[in-house]
Amino acid sequence: MRTTQKDNPALQIKPKAPETAIWRHHHILDVDDFSREEIELVFHTTKAMKEVLSRPIKRVPTLRGKTLITLFYEPSTRTRLSFELAAKNLSADVANLSASVSSVAKGESLVDTLSTLQALGADIVVMRHPRSGAPYIAAKYIAASIVNAGDGWHAHPTQALLDLYTIQEHRESLKGLKVVIIGDIMHSRVARSNIWGLTTMGVEVTLCCPPTLLPVGLGSQHHFPSVSIEPNIELALDGADIVMTLRLQLERQQSGLLPSIREYIQLYQLTEARLARAKPDALVFHPGPVNEGIEISPNVAHGPQSVINEQVTNGVAVRMALLYLLTGSQKR
Amino acid sequence: MRTTQKDNPALQIKPKAPETAIWRHHHILDVDDFSREEIELVFHTTKAMKEVLSRPIKRVPTLRGKTLITLFYEPSTRTRLSFELAAKNLSADVANLSASVSSVAKGESLVDTLSTLQALGADIVVMRHPRSGAPYIAAKYIAASIVNAGDGWHAHPTQALLDLYTIQEHRESLKGLKVVIIGDIMHSRVARSNIWGLTTMGVEVTLCCPPTLLPVGLGSQHHFPSVSIEPNIELALDGADIVMTLRLQLERQQSGLLPSIREYIQLYQLTEARLARAKPDALVFHPGPVNEGIEISPNVAHGPQSVINEQVTNGVAVRMALLYLLTGSQKR
Amino acid sequence: MRTTQKDNPALQIKPKAPETAIWRHHHILDVDDFSREEIELVFHTTKAMKEVLSRPIKRVPTLRGKTLITLFYEPSTRTRLSFELAAKNLSADVANLSASVSSVAKGESLVDTLSTLQALGADIVVMRHPRSGAPYIAAKYIAASIVNAGDGWHAHPTQALLDLYTIQEHRESLKGLKVVIIGDIMHSRVARSNIWGLTTMGVEVTLCCPPTLLPVGLGSQHHFPSVSIEPNIELALDGADIVMTLRLQLERQQSGLLPSIREYIQLYQLTEARLARAKPDALVFHPGPVNEGIEISPNVAHGPQSVINEQVTNGVAVRMALLYLLTGSQKR
Repeated sequence: MRTTQKDNPALQIKPKAPETAIWRHHHILDVDDFSREEIELVFHTTKAMKEVLSRPIKRVPTLRGKTLITLFYEPSTRTRLSFELAAKNLSADVANLSASVSSVAKGESLVDTLSTLQALGADIVVMRHPRSGAPYIAAKYIAASIVNAGDGWHAHPTQALLDLYTIQEHRESLKGLKVVIIGDIMHSRVARSNIWGLTTMGVEVTLCCPPTLLPVGLGSQHHFPSVSIEPNIELALDGADIVMTLRLQLERQQSGLLPSIREYIQLYQLTEARLARAKPDALVFHPGPVNEGIEISPNVAHGPQSVINEQVTNGVAVRMALLYLLTGSQKR
Repeated sequence: MRTTQKDNPALQIKPKAPETAIWRHHHILDVDDFSREEIELVFHTTKAMKEVLSRPIKRVPTLRGKTLITLFYEPSTRTRLSFELAAKNLSADVANLSASVSSVAKGESLVDTLSTLQALGADIVVMRHPRSGAPYIAAKYIAASIVNAGDGWHAHPTQALLDLYTIQEHRESLKGLKVVIIGDIMHSRVARSNIWGLTTMGVEVTLCCPPTLLPVGLGSQHHFPSVSIEPNIELALDGADIVMTLRLQLERQQSGLLPSIREYIQLYQLTEARLARAKPDALVFHPGPVNEGIEISPNVAHGPQSVINEQVTNGVAVRMALLYLLTGSQKR
Repeated sequence: MRTTQKDNPALQIKPKAPETAIWRHHHILDVDDFSREEIELVFHTTKAMKEVLSRPIKRVPTLRGKTLITLFYEPSTRTRLSFELAAKNLSADVANLSASVSSVAKGESLVDTLSTLQALGADIVVMRHPRSGAPYIAAKYIAASIVNAGDGWHAHPTQALLDLYTIQEHRESLKGLKVVIIGDIMHSRVARSNIWGLTTMGVEVTLCCPPTLLPVGLGSQHHFPSVSIEPNIELALDGADIVMTLRLQLERQQSGLLPSIREYIQLYQLTEARLARAKPDALVFHPGPVNEGIEISPNVAHGPQSVINEQVTNGVAVRMALLYLLTGSQKR
């Protein structure tokens, strides 16, 4: 009887990375504890996953019989779906729990919910929570792997890793690149995780935002020698390789941190004219969903330098890679 | 080693329709652009799918590794589940997105949501939207196949195709049959799509409703020579082969289009006495969910001439057939 | 070519129970109609399922091509997920329907919803409903198997069976054990189903609660000769083998059935001091979610005698066993 490669796709994911041994993580809580070698292992594994995604049947049995539960205390389209599809592409079983339909309504504590998920047989819990630090508490109480899919203003490590991968796909090396992050940095878990990952990879980061939206200490030369602050958007963009825009939470206006949306647009919207200050082949990132006409002009969001949709596609591949690496860690 | 048919069910769906070549659709937006030959191909393929559904293990690997996402901006029991189960019977991966839990809450535009689903790897997006025409916009912005699962008052093509299939299963040919559609035609996407499909198949259609619920232009002799209007229910039912009842949206009463529910019942409810005016073997259809005692009497809804549950069962098979045909179209 | 056991796990679930012939149930509505032999068959099958759960790939193809639909009219974390994961471990297709997103919103009746699920191809419907008796009505109108996942104050049979299994795992035999159930027995479907199951297995049951929370007739010597009532918690716990605590619905206080939460805690909270009245190896149960500090002290809930997490784990295995037994019943 013939057994074709197609019949036995288990044989086909071979990141064959000699460095697999360097992977230390049982949970993914933030990128602040990822070394350069680990980030490179993620890149390497992601590339193998992109090859899987390019097949007519984009499914491998790597996580067959494993259970991934998504536990979202905040609504999300792209992140939950991205994890769900990543897990299904690897043949895991997926169950979704969102705060509005769970017994969270009955006042169950986070720790009890996690104990229950553990006892139900979860191997991986992908968790989004409005409170910074919640996944760290979770990780103490559960044997399953916790993947932080966003906690308050604190961290969004898989978003940062997919951003890093997307940069790396377009540039030989990240080292020495100039990345500008524009927008509401204080409230952005995407910015925070990216700053950790980018600086680890040797990137020069410039933060550009109104002083009221700059978190205390983040620009400190002490912590991040390669991070600088430039509130003037034109100056910040000068010679940039990568421009990361952030979603403006429109409700911030009520908080008194912004004079008005109109003034914010005038001072901080990424327009074609401003983008021209960056390098000619500079790439434009946005974690989505985009407020078109607020933090970014429609022409730039849909323009030739935008890689917003690539970020989404790479997000599935990066999450497949991370689930694969975590599962390997469970075996050890 | 033995490889039984059961081990390799991929070999087992063979619609073997010489006409497969006639299939032109990459999306299913309405039935107005389906030819008679295409509708017959859907019938043919549906019959093969019903055979699959009759097996002890009702699952074939046809769509293995394909991703179907349901995107519902309106609540639905039967339609969403019908697509979900149809896709799972074909071994597709299914993820559900409903407006209330998605980042639609954050004001993301339809086009951005679809770009994201595309970038996430969706092969087919099944979409329900309260605005007429939304799936047409979607189809312009996405490489995946869009299946319209209901858009505003406009179209519900898979409902029409399952209705046509159900008629065809009971009658040798649709040509020359008399179909009466009773109820709130103005607001019914089911009626609109059925009128297209029925007239294409050579059916004589009679519309029966209060003048305030008849859409402007729909009865026009110009567009649909085989469609006539008869507001009197007894006259409309005379000699009918098929009686299609429609759900009355009870909130229409507030709109002033109905004098009162009570008068509507008196004039338009399908009762046993009225059904006796149709042919003795006339079949009764309803797209569900039924308002028993409003547009249809309980005795008729559950009576021997009702095929309401058959419609639901055929819905799964028709949707399997359409997903199968669409996937074939993606290969070409 | 090698075909390992691992490749063909269908061969691997063999409860090999000579008593399989005794299984009579097409639905699981309550445990009041389970014989001792049937409960032992559930134990036997659950043990085989726990072996499956201990494998690296915890998935067998037993229910491949079968469709299980969860229909929840009340929110639930653990019960819905437990059924969903149990079904997926057996390779069934699972679709979830919750009242808030279904066309229940449109006023569809329970019977119509069930007819639709039947027509869509459901093999098993797992149902939670706020009205006592709803699953019995459902079972009359559907060919699929109904599994009651909780109906009003009436029954929660799978919870009772997992509790019985958990006791049996720790003790040679249930016969003659002393089980104390403490709390709001009147409103507890968990207590009701447990009383049926425990007395069938020859357990001596003591109910301990304020007189206002004791249902009329439940302690009656006539119906349950092995059930007694002891409102004093210290006396009730004397020499107990098993202590079952129940969730206090905090909204009961408004109903006037409780003097105050504070007094309830003083009189009925399971504390370490009180637990010392039971046997030294007594086990503590709670169906979850726990109100820590109300019906049970945190030290007891997380203490060495607590089997709360084991209950959750056994719940998945018991539900796998029941789905397996039901599917067998469908073949006959």
